[in-house]
Formats: sequence, C-alpha cells, structure tokens
Amino acid sequence: MKLQPPLLTSLRGYDRQAFSDDLTAGIITAILLVPQGMAYALLAGLPAETGLYASIIPPAVYAVFGTSRTLAVGPVAVAALMVADALSRFAGADPQQWITGASILAAEVGVILAVGGALRLGRLVNLIGHPVLSGFTSAAAALIMLSQVGHLLGVDAPRGDAVTMITGLYTHIGAVSTSTTVTSVLAIAALVLARRPLQRLLTGLGASPNAAALASRTAPLAVVIAASLAMAALAGNGGAPVRVVGDIPAGLPAPGLDFLASAGWAELAPSAVLIALIGYVESVTVAKVLGGRRRERVDANQELLALGAANFGSALVGTMPAAGGFSRSVVNFDAGARTQVAALITAGLVGVVAAFFTGWFAFLPKAVLAAIIVVAIWQLIDFRGAIETTRYDRGDGATLIATVAGVLGFGLEPGLVAGIALSLFLYVWRSSRPHMAVIGRIPGTEHFRNVERHEVVCDPRRVLLRIDENIYFANAEPVRDFVLAALDRHPDAEAAVLVMSSVSYIDSSGLEMLEALHADLQAQSVALHLAEVKGPVADRLAQTHLWHGLPESHHHLSVAAAVDALGGDGGNETTAAATRRRIHGPDRPAG
Amino acid sequence: MKLQPPLLTSLRGYDRQAFSDDLTAGIITAILLVPQGMAYALLAGLPAETGLYASIIPPAVYAVFGTSRTLAVGPVAVAALMVADALSRFAGADPQQWITGASILAAEVGVILAVGGALRLGRLVNLIGHPVLSGFTSAAAALIMLSQVGHLLGVDAPRGDAVTMITGLYTHIGAVSTSTTVTSVLAIAALVLARRPLQRLLTGLGASPNAAALASRTAPLAVVIAASLAMAALAGNGGAPVRVVGDIPAGLPAPGLDFLASAGWAELAPSAVLIALIGYVESVTVAKVLGGRRRERVDANQELLALGAANFGSALVGTMPAAGGFSRSVVNFDAGARTQVAALITAGLVGVVAAFFTGWFAFLPKAVLAAIIVVAIWQLIDFRGAIETTRYDRGDGATLIATVAGVLGFGLEPGLVAGIALSLFLYVWRSSRPHMAVIGRIPGTEHFRNVERHEVVCDPRRVLLRIDENIYFANAEPVRDFVLAALDRHPDAEAAVLVMSSVSYIDSSGLEMLEALHADLQAQSVALHLAEVKGPVADRLAQTHLWHGLPESHHHLSVAAAVDALGGDGGNETTAAATRRRIHGPDRPAG
Repeated sequence: MKLQPPLLTSLRGYDRQAFSDDLTAGIITAILLVPQGMAYALLAGLPAETGLYASIIPPAVYAVFGTSRTLAVGPVAVAALMVADALSRFAGADPQQWITGASILAAEVGVILAVGGALRLGRLVNLIGHPVLSGFTSAAAALIMLSQVGHLLGVDAPRGDAVTMITGLYTHIGAVSTSTTVTSVLAIAALVLARRPLQRLLTGLGASPNAAALASRTAPLAVVIAASLAMAALAGNGGAPVRVVGDIPAGLPAPGLDFLASAGWAELAPSAVLIALIGYVESVTVAKVLGGRRRERVDANQELLALGAANFGSALVGTMPAAGGFSRSVVNFDAGARTQVAALITAGLVGVVAAFFTGWFAFLPKAVLAAIIVVAIWQLIDFRGAIETTRYDRGDGATLIATVAGVLGFGLEPGLVAGIALSLFLYVWRSSRPHMAVIGRIPGTEHFRNVERHEVVCDPRRVLLRIDENIYFANAEPVRDFVLAALDRHPDAEAAVLVMSSVSYIDSSGLEMLEALHADLQAQSVALHLAEVKGPVADRLAQTHLWHGLPESHHHLSVAAAVDALGGDGGNETTAAATRRRIHGPDRPAG
Repeated sequence: MKLQPPLLTSLRGYDRQAFSDDLTAGIITAILLVPQGMAYALLAGLPAETGLYASIIPPAVYAVFGTSRTLAVGPVAVAALMVADALSRFAGADPQQWITGASILAAEVGVILAVGGALRLGRLVNLIGHPVLSGFTSAAAALIMLSQVGHLLGVDAPRGDAVTMITGLYTHIGAVSTSTTVTSVLAIAALVLARRPLQRLLTGLGASPNAAALASRTAPLAVVIAASLAMAALAGNGGAPVRVVGDIPAGLPAPGLDFLASAGWAELAPSAVLIALIGYVESVTVAKVLGGRRRERVDANQELLALGAANFGSALVGTMPAAGGFSRSVVNFDAGARTQVAALITAGLVGVVAAFFTGWFAFLPKAVLAAIIVVAIWQLIDFRGAIETTRYDRGDGATLIATVAGVLGFGLEPGLVAGIALSLFLYVWRSSRPHMAVIGRIPGTEHFRNVERHEVVCDPRRVLLRIDENIYFANAEPVRDFVLAALDRHPDAEAAVLVMSSVSYIDSSGLEMLEALHADLQAQSVALHLAEVKGPVADRLAQTHLWHGLPESHHHLSVAAAVDALGGDGGNETTAAATRRRIHGPDRPAG
C-alpha cells in the first residue's frame, strides 16, 4: 500500500471553495444513496438497514485509500444479485444465516482484492473483455428486473433462474394485489418523469440547469418519503394496504467479528472470486472514465487494495460486498465533487439517517424500492451496444450472446465463467489463422506491400513473406504451411525471406516450427532469410540453434536490405498479377 | 473427402523399382511391428492378438485415404496407456468388457476425427503447444515404464498413478522372480546392444550400412523368437519358469458390430476426445517431418478423415485406437518406403503372422514384451528438450513442468487438460502486457525507432507511440494506461500519434478503449493521430465512430508522413536521452 493515503495527496491546497463543492456533491449523493442502499439490500435478500451500513463504512474506507477522487462506493445492483444468488444456495431460509453469509462474502471479496493488489495482479481483470462484461451486465439486469416483478405486483414469486421466475410469476398471476400495483405504477411514473421531463420542465420555467438537476436527483428520496407518509396515513386503521419494509432498527453499524468463526468460507469462496472480479471491474471502469475527464490517474493495484479494505469494512459491520457504482459516481462527479471529502460527507449523512431517521421508512412500501431498482437498472440492458459489437466483430458478438444465454439459462456464475472461457478460446482460435502475405516492392520505392492489395513487383527467385502475428503454438503450423505452400507455387525460388516486422513474440513451439521449416527449406535447396526481426525477439532468438544455423548474411534489418543482399532487382521481376496467379492458380481471381 | 484417394495419386508412374523399395520397407516395418503390436496391446490391457489386428486394418485403411506416403499407422505407446487408463475406470476386471470398451473408444476416436475433418477443424489441434505435448509425452513415457517394472520383475504390481505404482512395487519387492528378472535383463541387454553397438560392429566387420541397419531392426523379432524357443525348451517339464503370453488364437480379425449396441459411449467419450487429439497430433507431426524431407505436402483435414476411417476400422475388428507412430514411421521412411504400398505390404505380412504363426508366441515371456516397451519408450523422455524449452521461454518451461506434474500427480487426462488450459491462459496473460515504445526519428532518415534502444530525436510537442501487439480485451487497458502515462510526461504535447504497424486485429474491447482514449485526449486538448494502420484493420475501423470522429488529416500512411503533417521537425527536437529522462524521471537510468 502507498505510504501516504491518496486522500492526503488530494487535500494538498484544499480550500474553502473545494469544501463547498464537496459538500454540495456529498449531500446530493447521500440523497440518492439512502433509497438506493435500502433497495439493493432487499435485492440481495438482506434487511434494509444493512444497505445503509454498506453505504457508510465502505465509502469512508475507500475515501482514505482509493485513488479515484469521485468514485461513489457502496452497494451495487449486479453484485447484490450475485450475493442473493450465492446466499440462496448457502443460507436457505434462515435470515441470520443470510447476514452471516453476506459478511463472509464481503470479507472474502476484501481478502481477494487486497491480495491481488499486494501481488500486483490488477491485470488479471483484463481477462474480462467488453463483450463478456456487457453481456453479463445486461443479462444480470434482466434477472434483477424479473426478480422485482413480484414486489411490484405484490405476489410471492420464487427467485432463481429466468425460467423459474417467469413460471413462478405466471402461476401467481391471480394473486396480484391491486393496491400494490397502483403504488408501483405511481412510483415508476414519478421516477421516470423526474428524470429528463422534470429537468426540461424546470429549465423551461427558468430554473438553472444545476437546480433542475438537483431537483431531479432528489426524486427517489422524495418518492420514498412521500410514499412512506402516504402509507402511514392510510395504515391508520390497522395495517398498511401494501407490504412495507417494516421497522428498521435505528443506530450506527456495530463492528463484530463473529463471521470469522462461522462455517461457509470454503463454500462461498468461488462466488466471492466472481463478485470481487465484477465489482472491481465496474469500479475501475467508472474511476477511469471520470479520471480521464480531469487528467487524474487511477492506479489499478492501489484500487485493489482500497476496495479490498472497503469490503473488509463491510464484513466488519455485517453487511454485503460493496463496489463503485456507475450512475452514482457520475452523479457525484456531475454534482461537482472535487475530492474524496465528498464521499466522507455522503457517508456521514447516511450515518445520520441510519442513526436517527430509520423510523421514517417503517411504512415504506417494498413496491417503491422495487420501482427504484427497476428504473435504475433498466438502462443497464444495452441492446444497442450488443448490436454494434456484433456488427463490428462477429466473434465478440457471439461471446456476448453466449454470455447472456449462459446467465439466463444456467445462472450468473456459470454464465460468467463460460463467457470468459469462450472469449479466451476465441482469441487463440482467431490468431491460429494469422494474416500472412506475399509482398513485393512498390516500384521505385523502398516500400514493400501485399501483392493482393497493391500493384507491386516481385522476383520469383526470392519469395518475400510477411507474417502479421506473433508466432506461437496456436499458429506455428499454419505459418509453416503458408510458407511451404507459397514455395510450392515458386519452384524456381532460391530464397525465402520471412519479414518479421509484426512479430513481437515467438514461443518455443514457434521456435521449433521455424527450426523444422529451416530443415524443410534446406531439403528443397531454398535459403531461409529473416528480415526486420524486432529487438526483443532477436535477443531471445540469439541463443538458439536456429539463429546460429543461419549465416550472418541471412539476417537483414529491412526488406530492402534483404533484396539488395540477394542480388538486387536483377531483371527477373514479375508483376503482382503474375504472382497472384501463381498463388491462386490461373483460373481464380485474386481474393 | 477427396474425390480420388491419395493412394491413386501416389501410384501414378509407379514402377518395378518403386515396388521393390516398398517391398523392402514393408518387410522391415512388419518385422518391427509384430512384437511392438503385441507389446502395446498388453500395455493397453488387451489380449496380444488385438495388437496384431490393430497393425493390420488401420494401416491398410490409412494407406488408401491418408496423404502421407510413409506414415506407419498402428498401435502407439502413449495412446495405449491412455486406453488402459480409460478402460481401468470403465471395465474393471472383466476382460470382455476391456475389448468392448477398446472398440467403443476406437469408434469414438474415428467419429471425432472424421467429423473434425469434415468441419475442417484441423486447426483445433494447434491448441496443444509444444511444451504441453512434450511434457505430456515425457510423463506418459515415465508412467509406461513404471507400469512395466512389475512385468520385468515378475510381480503383480497395481497399475494406476505414479504413487500407486511406486508404493505397489515397494510392497511387492519380496516377491521378485529371479528367473523373470534374468530374462528381462538379458532381453534389455540384447535390445540395447542391437542398436548402435551392433550396427557399428557390423559396419566395422565390412557390412554395408543398410545391411547393418536391417540386422539391427530385426533384433526385437529375433529376441522374441529366441526367447519363445528357449522358454518352450525350458518348459518341457511342466510349465514355463516365467509368465508367458500363452495361447494366442490364430486367425484374421473378424469384423463385428456388437460394440455399437454396448453401453459406455457417453462414459468413454471424454477419454476418446483426448486420445483422438494426442493420436492425431502425433500422426500429423511425424507425417509433416517426413513429408518435409521429400517436398510432399500433408493435408491436415484429409489426415483427419483418413485417421478417422482407420480408427473406425480398429473398432470394427474389436481392437484399440491407432495412430501414426514416430519411430516406426522413421524406420519405414529410412528403409526406403516410396508410397503407401509399403504400408499395405506391412499389413499383409502382419496378417500372415496373425493367421498362421501366433503359435510361435505361446511361450513368449511377458517380461520380453515389457523389455521391448521399455527400450522403445525410454527415448520419449525428453530431459534435454525440457531444459532447452525452459531456457528459451520460462512460461513455456512452466507449462511443461506443470503438465508433467499434472500427469504424474493426477493422471493422464487431468494433466493434459490442465496443460492445455495453462498454455492458453499464459499466452493471453503474456499479451496482456504488450510491448509498447515511444519512438523517435533516426536523424537524417525516414526510420523511427524505440527511444530506449536507439539514439533518436523526438519532438516533445508530438509523442509517437508504437504498439507492438494486437489490441484486444486482455491488453486494451494497459495500452490506454501506457499512452496516458507517456502524455503525463509530455505536458506540452499537442498530438499523440499511435503507430499501428504491428496491430493486426482490434477487437470490440480494443475499439471501446480507443474511443475512451480519444475522449481522454480531447479533454486534455491533445489530438489523436493514427499511422500505419494495416489494410484489414482499417477496413473494419472504417465503420466505427472512432474513425469518423477523427478528421481525415489525422490518418497517416507512415510515421514520417504523420510527422510532416504535424509541422515537420520544427526545431523543437530533443534527444532520446532527454525523452528517456522524461519517461523514467531524472533519477533513474534508462531501462
């Protein structure tokens, strides 16, 4: 960990104006976080107050150790669903066991992230590509919305995979509560109208854009308070007409270490790995987007340590894993947060609510929290991105669709793992068919280009072959096949020049292939030449039999130097068209 | 499948001399194959005659459809051990069940290979890199040798993983049979002496090298016949003093389809996939090595079909999966085989032995077959290759060692799968830290090189950054971090030029990163330029927001053109040393 917490660096030159900005942003983010925190706790299957606790301790810890000045750490929707998924297998119907399990998960996430930071393994998260993350997020969002339909309609629908939830809702369709549905529709309408429409209306009425945005952002809390008050009034005569959150114990979270001695660490560990991965990727992605806007750098390994500490903080107070939330961080940034002080203010305000104002939420309808979730989560389903990804790269599109199908069909964790495995496999599979080209000289220049794309001249006595990929186990044999096939078409070739300008790495399978190719060429009385071998590649090849088996005169710094050394352009040139005919045969057009 | 079997192509212009050469090679290979076939059948846990059958039908089928003229198909040691491993879990102690299981495996291997050929999936085998194959072969050879120690010493040691076999041998150490051990030592000595020492002796005595090699190659059959005769003589008075193979039913293999209706197809399928993979890789590797010596091409997809058909032939006659053997094929090639006719002659001769001469082997000691296996397999353990691989590439060395440890500790199949998975992961992990360089102009030229390696000049107003790797999910963020870090060191930069000469592929994660980087640079008032984008990459980028968001004037064909467009060398040049100081800070030497 850095000797000096990043918070202290941020506070150099901190002044009254900066504090004023942080205060505004901290208040606005807290207003958003109170209802969101309770909603995500319910999504995770935990009591509402744990969502508040997860909005106090983790952001405060992150504020001290994190490198992003504006990341808003706390409960996040996708991780909450992953927690619910893991705990439903682990804890069954025992509420206390759910809280214990959440603490264990948070502690494990903390340890995994912190150890990853200490070992500087931040790069590991790069193994989740954009299509996997996008597909996973969209599918998780769909599952989250499905899981809230029961709350919105006031029925007890089972939770689980997509099919279970849909069939469960179908069988309960007769039990729909009209009062709950009306509440839900009103809440959703209020939340949706409070976004763009309210902002447009207020600015149209002459409000400043900032004031309009502020009004818009207080909407979830306003809806929560209004609904609670309304329900409390209606409940005057024995019981609320819809299901409500109920009594939330007031008070600050109390640290406890009981979870350390609880059983289930091994059972929950695989889920913790995936929650840590997803939480970290989401956090760092947001932190980088926001950092990029203000030339602030995010240190990936320090982020691992900071988020690890934040999650260990979650475990200590008996709540769920936390991460940086996308929309919440953007709100914090847009509200003018300058430093981590804004997050400390947010945490303090949520703490005040937890200590003194939870009584206000006893009559809060669960349907309203579900409405907050649905409205917040809807935008995570990224149809357009999926279409654009597929259009740009069919393999990436296939990965995205497979991840979505895996999550919806087999669950969050199997879908995520399958998506990651598929993306690794597809990359290797793609590079196992490397781009290679026979090249020739652009007349009158020192430039050499692909005969298939340019009108170059070639000399059939020497074949110039450019390999546009690292040479390693997955493509070593295709490279050899390509070279030998090209030489089959040039029976009068005396030399084959491999142009290595795009080769940054040759593994031992690639080396072995080159040695075998060298032997093949010797048997055919064709001399092997190498051109434009990069420094790091040459450094390693210099220790090999291959390198020592090639005379010094067969190594060339440039293609032009190789052609000069091989006798220059001696009047044997032929056109690109003739070479293409050699390659494809006389009866096929150039590909 | 090719319309015309490759055999017919080979027979164009076939003449008496070619037949004479094929006849000699066919006889020599048959002499080698008879004892080897029986030995590998015992290694697979099957009756000796099935080894002969696997030496008749599969090579005959391969001869018709295969593209290699000299590949000697039949039972191979590593696949035999994999069969034994799979069948020991499947068939328990029931000998008939072992034969049924072997047929199912052979049929499944045949189907897998043929389907792979029809779908043109030959490239899939490239996923087994050299370190995995080398480690797997060495470890399998060690297991094979361990499995034969019991036969060599005449004790009933259990088979299984390395620890089971070693502890089993240790507990049976008191039961060692002296007569068996003496037989084994004599057989091993004869087999070893018949190699180099006998050849040297004979050529020293004036024999031609060919005659000496022939004498050397008949040694295994000579040892088998001599041992059988000696044991038959010793056995005159009731029973042989060592364990013998016993009666081998004489006759040609009879086709049967009972295995089609037997249970176990699903259970054996995963093993069949791995046996198919290993058998195919070994076959094609040998075929390519031999083909390279005579300018003959091997068609990977046709090989899949031919080996698939050969294995289905194995299944039909109730024997084990077959593949091209390395040492046997080299013997066939060195003995002068010109075409697949040599393999047909070999198959015919083994057929004659199976039909009429199996009685000769009733008194063949099992210890002699074990000696043949041990002497043949010893050379598969490749210590030197492992050391050279590790020296060349530590990652490949780690993969090799992990594969060996996996096979010895957890078994053949888990070890192989772990090795393949580790090699895929390590490749992606390596490319997730791509080589990137700040480059500058070599004074007075159009060449631009790494500031770390060359005395180039740079202009701090424009940073030239070369990315030496495809940009994809695993390295997209490191590329962005590198570019932003370089710009942090050049606060007066007005333009960043990404040199894409080594980038052959940008996936959708890479594209998204470049779009985010573009936004980062815009926020910092730095113009993004691209240079030397390859044709295929440009074709795909042309449809993207990124491409359209960059003015035409920000795309450059070469680095020199980019520098010219950005105002040329306007007198702001600084030295490579100064740039290195910017990158590393004043207090650190250049890396």
